[in-house]
Amino acid sequence: MFNKYNVIVVGGGHAGCEAAASAANLGSSVLLITMNMATIAQMSCNPAMGGVAKGQIIREIDAMGGYSGIIADKTTIQFRMLNRSKGPAMWSPRTQNDRMRFAEEWRLQLESMPNIDIWQDTVKEIIVRDGKASGVVTSLGISIESDAVVLTNGTFLNGTIHIGEKRFGGGRTAEKAATGLTEQLVNLGFESGRMKTGTPPRIDGRSLNYTLMEEQWGDEERGKFSFTDVPLPTEQRCCWITYTNEAVHNALKEGFEKSPMFTGRIKGLGPRYCPSIEDKINRFAERDRHQIFVEPEGWRTVEIYVNGFSTSLPEDVQLKALRLIPGFEQARMFRPGYAIEYDYFPPMQLDLTLETLRIKHLFFAGQINGTTGYEEAASQGFIAGINAHQRITNQHELILKRSESYIGVLIDDLVTKGTEEPYRMFTSRAEHRLLLRQDNADARLTPIAHQLGLVSDERLEHVKKKVNAADNLVDYMRKQSIGPDAINPVLARLNSSPVSQKTRLFHILSRPQINIYDIAAADNSFQMLLARHNKETIEQAEIKVKYDSYFEKEIEIVNKMRRMEDQEINPNFDYTNLVSLSKEAREKLIKVKPRTLGQASRISGVSPSDISVLMIHMG
Amino acid sequence: MFNKYNVIVVGGGHAGCEAAASAANLGSSVLLITMNMATIAQMSCNPAMGGVAKGQIIREIDAMGGYSGIIADKTTIQFRMLNRSKGPAMWSPRTQNDRMRFAEEWRLQLESMPNIDIWQDTVKEIIVRDGKASGVVTSLGISIESDAVVLTNGTFLNGTIHIGEKRFGGGRTAEKAATGLTEQLVNLGFESGRMKTGTPPRIDGRSLNYTLMEEQWGDEERGKFSFTDVPLPTEQRCCWITYTNEAVHNALKEGFEKSPMFTGRIKGLGPRYCPSIEDKINRFAERDRHQIFVEPEGWRTVEIYVNGFSTSLPEDVQLKALRLIPGFEQARMFRPGYAIEYDYFPPMQLDLTLETLRIKHLFFAGQINGTTGYEEAASQGFIAGINAHQRITNQHELILKRSESYIGVLIDDLVTKGTEEPYRMFTSRAEHRLLLRQDNADARLTPIAHQLGLVSDERLEHVKKKVNAADNLVDYMRKQSIGPDAINPVLARLNSSPVSQKTRLFHILSRPQINIYDIAAADNSFQMLLARHNKETIEQAEIKVKYDSYFEKEIEIVNKMRRMEDQEINPNFDYTNLVSLSKEAREKLIKVKPRTLGQASRISGVSPSDISVLMIHMG
Ligand SMILES: Cc1cc2nc3c(=O)[nH]c(=O)nc-3n(C[C@H](O)[C@H](O)[C@H](O)COP(=O)(O)OP(=O)(O)OC[C@H]3O[C@@H](n4cnc5c(N)ncnc54)[C@H](O)[C@@H]3O)c2cc1C
Ligand SMILES: Cc1cc2nc3c(=O)[nH]c(=O)nc-3n(C[C@H](O)[C@H](O)[C@H](O)COP(=O)(O)OP(=O)(O)OC[C@H]3O[C@@H](n4cnc5c(N)ncnc54)[C@H](O)[C@@H]3O)c2cc1C
Repeated sequence: MFNKYNVIVVGGGHAGCEAAASAANLGSSVLLITMNMATIAQMSCNPAMGGVAKGQIIREIDAMGGYSGIIADKTTIQFRMLNRSKGPAMWSPRTQNDRMRFAEEWRLQLESMPNIDIWQDTVKEIIVRDGKASGVVTSLGISIESDAVVLTNGTFLNGTIHIGEKRFGGGRTAEKAATGLTEQLVNLGFESGRMKTGTPPRIDGRSLNYTLMEEQWGDEERGKFSFTDVPLPTEQRCCWITYTNEAVHNALKEGFEKSPMFTGRIKGLGPRYCPSIEDKINRFAERDRHQIFVEPEGWRTVEIYVNGFSTSLPEDVQLKALRLIPGFEQARMFRPGYAIEYDYFPPMQLDLTLETLRIKHLFFAGQINGTTGYEEAASQGFIAGINAHQRITNQHELILKRSESYIGVLIDDLVTKGTEEPYRMFTSRAEHRLLLRQDNADARLTPIAHQLGLVSDERLEHVKKKVNAADNLVDYMRKQSIGPDAINPVLARLNSSPVSQKTRLFHILSRPQINIYDIAAADNSFQMLLARHNKETIEQAEIKVKYDSYFEKEIEIVNKMRRMEDQEINPNFDYTNLVSLSKEAREKLIKVKPRTLGQASRISGVSPSDISVLMIHMG
Repeated sequence: MFNKYNVIVVGGGHAGCEAAASAANLGSSVLLITMNMATIAQMSCNPAMGGVAKGQIIREIDAMGGYSGIIADKTTIQFRMLNRSKGPAMWSPRTQNDRMRFAEEWRLQLESMPNIDIWQDTVKEIIVRDGKASGVVTSLGISIESDAVVLTNGTFLNGTIHIGEKRFGGGRTAEKAATGLTEQLVNLGFESGRMKTGTPPRIDGRSLNYTLMEEQWGDEERGKFSFTDVPLPTEQRCCWITYTNEAVHNALKEGFEKSPMFTGRIKGLGPRYCPSIEDKINRFAERDRHQIFVEPEGWRTVEIYVNGFSTSLPEDVQLKALRLIPGFEQARMFRPGYAIEYDYFPPMQLDLTLETLRIKHLFFAGQINGTTGYEEAASQGFIAGINAHQRITNQHELILKRSESYIGVLIDDLVTKGTEEPYRMFTSRAEHRLLLRQDNADARLTPIAHQLGLVSDERLEHVKKKVNAADNLVDYMRKQSIGPDAINPVLARLNSSPVSQKTRLFHILSRPQINIYDIAAADNSFQMLLARHNKETIEQAEIKVKYDSYFEKEIEIVNKMRRMEDQEINPNFDYTNLVSLSKEAREKLIKVKPRTLGQASRISGVSPSDISVLMIHMG
C-alpha cells in the first residue's frame, strides 16, 4: 500500500526527527514510522536542551541546517548561558523548555516538509536483500520498500521499566515497548547489549514551598541556540534550587533493599554522569547534600521536574525522601520516578557514517547506539539522515572531524572506542575543544552544510560576512593604537596597570579585566566602528583577540595531527598477516576497520607502536 | 503513601475529568488516577464536540458549572449551529476542535483546581469493605483509601484493537489496555458485556485535493457552548464535504472477507448510529453514496479526520477505497482506522445517581456504562461526581428529571432500560424535547446547580435576569399592539397577509415569516426597548412567543406525568409477593429497584397494568 521511499526512518524521537529532516532536505523521499504520532519528539526525561558540551552540539546541528535548536528556541521558557565566567570554550547555552510545545513544534516542523510522510505503526523487522537494508515490515504486517533504513528506536527495544520491586514492559512510562527488532538483528549477526537509564518523579508544583528554595532566573540578556532569526518567547519562567540532606539520604537508604539496581535486578549499566540519587548517595557517601533543580515543565502547567532526583526506588520511598527536602515538605507526586532497561547495539559495529558494517544501507542513530541525551541523539540522527541520502545517491559521505566539531568527536568515540555505559558528551572528550566553541559553530560547519546543499547561499553569505567582519575588527585592533591619556583612566578604573606609551588595542583587549566596550568608551573612532557591527560579530572579535595565542597553538596541533589523522587506510587492508602488530591490536583493527590512521590510533588496545607498524606497511 | 481522599476518580477521559471537577467543586478532596497524564481528556475519535442532542447536553453541563463547554469553546476551530432551519428544539451547537489544545486545556483546568490531585497509574482493583467501595489498588501495588470511587474507564477495560485480520491489546491506538478490573467486578457479582466502536483513518491533509470537495465554513455569527464569558478564538478553519461512490464501495467490499466484523471475530455490538463505512454499504445497499466530512484536527496540524469513514477493514483496503473518493486520489494515511472491543457493565446495575446497586459508594460513568460519545460520557461523569460527593457527605442526591434535561433522559434510559448496543443521545429519545432546548439550558438547570453550591450567586442572578427580561419582553408583546399602517408594509415585504386592525405584537410575531427585528423596524418604541436587551434575551423572548402554544401543551403533559412520575416507591418495597404482577415485571422490578412509578413505567416488560397493580398496593 506504500510506494517505495528513499529513506525510512524508524522512530520519531530526537534522532529520528533530525534524520527524517536532513534526508528530506537533501531531496530524499522519507517515511517516518513511529509508534505514536502524539509522542513525536517527546522529551523522555528533563524538559531542557543543551548544557555543557550539549549546548555546543545543538549549535552545531543548527549551523548545519538541523532543527533541534530552532524548536528549542521557540519553546524556551528559560535561557541560560552556562559557564560564562570561564573561557569561551566552556560557554554552553541551555534552555528550559515547555515539554508539550517542544513535541508539538517538532511535529509541525515535520508536517511542513513536503518530502516527509508519516506513518504511525511499529517496525518489527528490517527487510534485508543481498546484505542491504531495503525496507521494513510493521506490526500491522505491512511491507514498505526503501533504499535505506535509519533505526532510531531510543529506549524502546525490549524496554523494561523498574520501580522498586515492580517491573513491567514499556518504552517510556505509559508507552509500549518495541519487540522483535533486536531478535532479528541478533540473528543477522549483530551484537546487542543492555543499558539502563532513569528519570525523577514529577511533582505537583502547587504543593511546593518555593520560599524555602533559591530562585534561579534565566539570563537577562537572552541568548538562543539558533543562528537563524527565530521568534523567541518574550518572557521567561523562574526555576529553583534546593538541596538534599542527611535525612533525605537516610530515608532513601531504607529503600535500598528494594532497589532494582542494588539488588541486581537491573543488569544494564546506567549513565555514570546522570546517576540516580541512590547512586549518588552510595558512590559519594562523604557528601552530605546534593543539589536539586526544581524545573517547571512548561508555561502553564503546574507539573515540576525534580532534576537531580532520578530514582527507581519504590514510590513510597521516593515520596518519603522527597518530603524531607526543604520546600518539598508537602510535596505531592504526579508520577513516580523509574528506571528503564533497554537494548542497544555496541557502536563499534558502525562505520563513521553511522551505517552498520554488517548490513549496507542500514543506519543506527541515537540511544540505540549506547548514547544518552537528546542532543547526542539528535546529532547522530542528523548525520545518519545525511549519510543515508548520500549513500543511496552515490554521493560523498559526511564524516565530521574531531577537530571541527563535537559531533565528530561523538561519532568517532562511539565507532572507534565503543561504549560500555551510556555515553554522554563532555567538553573534556574533545581534545580540540578550544576550537569547538558554541560561538563559532556556524563558521566551522555552515560551509560544510552548504556544500551538501543543506543551507542556502544566503545563509552561507551571512556566516562569511560575520567571520570577515570579525576578522576585520581584529585586524583593526592589531593596527590601531591608543595613547596613555585616553586609555589609562579606563585601566585604572578596572584595576589594570597603566600603559606608558601608545599601545595596540589588541594588546589592551588581551588583558583579562578589559572588555571590548571598555576600550570603545575611551576611543571615539573605535566606538563608531563597533556601532556598525552587531553583537555577535563584536563578541566573536573579542574572543578571537582574547584567546588568540591559545587558538594559534591549538590550530598548529590540529594541523600536525591532521596529517596523520587524514592518512587513509584502504578499507580492504589485510591486517591478518601483519605479524608485528600486537594480537589485541590486530583483532580490534579487523573489527573496527578504521578509515584513517587517526581513527586507528584512538582504538583502545592499539598502541603507538602498532601505529608505527601500520605506517610502515602503508608506505 | 497517600492520605485518604474523599473521592477517587479512575480514568481521565471526558467522564473522569467532569467527575473530578464536580466532586472537587462541591468540596470533596479528589484524586484523579489515570494511565497517562499526557492523554487526559484525549478525544479518542472525532475532533468535535456537540451536534444534534449532544450539543444540548454540553449546554446543560455548562449551565450547571461543568467545564466541557468552556474547554470546547476555548479550543474551537469552527462553530456551527446545526438545524437552524428547524424549530428551536432542534437547534444544536457543534464545534470542530483542536485535538491537542482540547486535551491540554482540560489538563490545565484540572491542575488549576485546588481540591484535585492527579496520579499517573493504572487501577487494578477496587478496595471493598462491608459492601462499600473504600479505595483502589494500582498496578504499582499502591493502596489508596477513599470514601467513594468513580470508575470511568472508557474503552480501556480489556480493550482489543482490530484492523483487518490483525488484533492486539490496547485501550486506544498506541495506548495500553487496562486489565484486572473487569475480572474483579465480575467476581463481586457484576455482569459485564462486550461492545465495540471504531474510528476512521487519519490522513495527511497535504495529499488532498480540496478543489474537488465542497467547502463547509462555520457560522459567520459565532455561537458558543458556554453561558459564561469565555474568550473565543477569533478565526475559524474551513472543513470540506465529499462523497463515496460505487467504486469506493466495491473496493471496500473486496476487504469484507477480512473484516473482523463480518467474519465474527468481533463479538461486541457497535454503535448503530455511528456505523462503520462497511456497515453502511452493507446495511444501506441501495445508497450509491455516503457523505464524508473532511475535518482538520487543529489550527496548525495538517492531520485530517475523515468523518463518516470509520472502518476496521485491512489498512490497504482502507487506503485503496479512500483514494477513489473525489479529492482523495493521492491521499496518504498517517494512521489507519480501527475497531476496538471493550468491556462494559450493563447499566441496569446502577441507581439513578450512577451509584452501583451492588457496591455502595462505587459509581460508574461514561463509556463503561455502555454509552458512546464524549458528551454522554462527560454528563455522566459530571453527575457521578456530584452524587459521589453528596453521598459521602449525606446530602441529597441529584437526579435530573426527563422533563428537565437530556442528562435526565440519558441516565433514566440507561438505568431503567439498559442498553445492548452503544447508547448515544438523540432528540427523539427525549419525549419533552420541546422544553429541553439548548437556549434554555441555563433557565432549566442553573438554579438546581446553584442549590447544590456548584454555581455562584452572581451566575444565578444573571440567569434570573435573562429569564425575567425575556418574560417582560413577551408580556410587552402580549399587551402592545401595532396599527395596520405601520406593520402592513413589513408584512407585505415578507409575504405575510396584511392586518386590518390594531394587532398585538405577540400575534404578529407568531407568524412564521416574521422575526422580532422585522417588527421592531416598524415600531419605534419597541425598537428602543429591544436596544436595551442583549441578543440572547431577545432570542429567548422570540422563541417563547413563536412556540408558545406548543410549550404550554408540553408543560401540561409534563405536569400530569410528573404527578405519577414523582410518586416514590419505597426502596425496600417487596415485589416478591405481588402475585398480580406479571412474572417478567416482577423480575425486572426486583432487579432495577425503580425509585418512582414513572421510572417503573419505563422498564421494558413492565406494562401499564403492572403499574396499576403497583399503584394499588402503594396506596
Ligand atoms: C526514563 C528515561 C530517563 C532518561 N534519563 C536521561 C538522563 O538522565 N539524561 C539524559 O541525557 N538522557 C536521559 N534519557 C535519554 C533521552 O531521553 C534519550 O537519550 C533521547 O530521547 C534519545 O533519543 P532517541 O531519538 O534516540 O530515542 P527516543 O527519544 O527514545 O525516541 C525513540 C522513538 O522511536 C519510536 N520507536 C521505537 N521503536 C520503534 C519501532 N520499532 N517502530 C516504530 N517506532 C519506534 C518511539 O515511539 C520513539 O518515538 C532518558 C530516557 C528515558 C526514557
Ligand atoms: C476507537 C474509538 C472510536 C470511537 N468512535 C466513536 C464514535 O464513532 N462516536 C462516538 O460518539 N464516540 C466514539 N468513541 C467514543 C468516545 O471516545 C468515548 O465515548 C468517550 O471518550 C468516552 O469517554 P470516557 O470518559 O468514558 O472514556 P475515555 O475517553 O475512553 O477515557 C478513559 C480514561 O480512563 C483511563 N483509564 C482506563 N482504565 C484505567 C485504569 N484502570 N486506571 C487508570 N486509568 C484508566 C484511560 O487512560 C483514559 O484516560 C470512540 C472511541 C474510540 C476509542
